[in-house]
Amino acid sequence: MGVVYFELSMSLDGFVTGPNISVDNPLGEGGEHLHDWMFDGKTAEESVEFEEKVFAPSGAIVMGRRMLDLGIGPWGDNPTFHAPVFVVTNRPHDPIVKEGGTTYYFVTDGLEAAFELARKAAGSKDIAIVGGADIVRQCLDRGLVEEARLNLIPMVLGGGTRLFDGVASSLHFAIARVIEADGVVHLRFRVG
Amino acid sequence: MGVVYFELSMSLDGFVTGPNISVDNPLGEGGEHLHDWMFDGKTAEESVEFEEKVFAPSGAIVMGRRMLDLGIGPWGDNPTFHAPVFVVTNRPHDPIVKEGGTTYYFVTDGLEAAFELARKAAGSKDIAIVGGADIVRQCLDRGLVEEARLNLIPMVLGGGTRLFDGVASSLHFAIARVIEADGVVHLRFRVG
Repeated sequence: MGVVYFELSMSLDGFVTGPNISVDNPLGEGGEHLHDWMFDGKTAEESVEFEEKVFAPSGAIVMGRRMLDLGIGPWGDNPTFHAPVFVVTNRPHDPIVKEGGTTYYFVTDGLEAAFELARKAAGSKDIAIVGGADIVRQCLDRGLVEEARLNLIPMVLGGGTRLFDGVASSLHFAIARVIEADGVVHLRFRVG
Repeated sequence: MGVVYFELSMSLDGFVTGPNISVDNPLGEGGEHLHDWMFDGKTAEESVEFEEKVFAPSGAIVMGRRMLDLGIGPWGDNPTFHAPVFVVTNRPHDPIVKEGGTTYYFVTDGLEAAFELARKAAGSKDIAIVGGADIVRQCLDRGLVEEARLNLIPMVLGGGTRLFDGVASSLHFAIARVIEADGVVHLRFRVG
C-alpha cells in the first residue's frame, strides 16, 4: 500500500505562503522564496524533472480549489503530476484533461468522497495532498494523513497563511526522517 | 571569540510556550512537553549534568525578567548556568548570588547595556540568550544574535507564545547544522 502524505514548504515562523495572495502572486509576498530550494541552480528542464520525480510515486493528487485556480495557469498543458488530481470544491466543473496523464476532477461532495476516488485511482501508489493549507488542515483533522513532509525554509515571512492554525494539538507527530540540503531541511513525520 | 546564540525549544506551529503561563505553570498548558527531550529516560541527576554541559561553553547568560521570575524557584540554589546571568528589566534589584558561580544581575538601562556586561563577563566564551521570546526577538531586531539554536519538537501546541511574531522578515538565516535526535530536531542557523 502507498502512503497518504502532504508536502509543503514552510518558513521558520510557520507560514506556507506570504501575505496578499493573488493570481499574479500565488504564493504571496516573499512566499516564492519558499520554493527557491527546488529551482536554485537548476535549469527549467531540470526543475521539471525534479518535480516529476517528486510526484512519480503518487497515483493520485488531492488539492483545494483555490490552489488549482492559482496553479492551473503556471502548471501549463503538461503538468508535472502525471496522475489524476482530485480538486475539493463546492463549485461543480467538468473534468479538465491535460497532457501526460494529468486530469483535474472536481469533487463537490466532500473530502471523504475525494479520498475515496483518490484511493481507487492510486491503487498501491501514494496519495499526495499538495495544499493549500486549509485542505491539509481538514485532512489532518479527519485523520486522513499518514505522513507530513515539511520542507523547512530558513527564513521568516512575518505574515501569510499559517499551516497549523486550528490543527488539533492532540495530533501525534513522530520524526521519521530528517535530511539537510542546500537552503532547506526536509522533515518527515508519521502522523497519528 | 565565543558566539552569541539563543536556544529555545519550539513546536511545529512555532510556539515556545503553551497558553496561560503562570508561576505554577511557567511553560503554559502543554508547554512542558517542549522540554521532554531533555529529561526523557534520564534520572534527575543526569538531567542536571546534561544542562550543565549545555551551558558549560557560555561565560554569560542573558534573559528577561519574566523568565527569571518564573524560573528562579525551579532552578534552585545551585542553578545549572554556573555563570553570571544578566536579567533585562526595568525594576531595579540587588544581585542575587546563588551557589556554583551563578549570580543574577538586574540590568535596568537596556539590552545593549546588558550585552556590554555580558561580553565583559564572557571573555572568549559564548553568550547564551535563554529567553523569553520577547528578549530573543529584541536581540534579533538589534542584530545581537549570531546563531539561532532551535530545538524543533514534533508537536502542535495550538496556542501560547510565538517565537518569531514581529521579527523582521529581512533577517537572513543560513542552515549551519541539523541533528536528528529522539523526539527533537536540533537546528542551528547563522543569523545575519
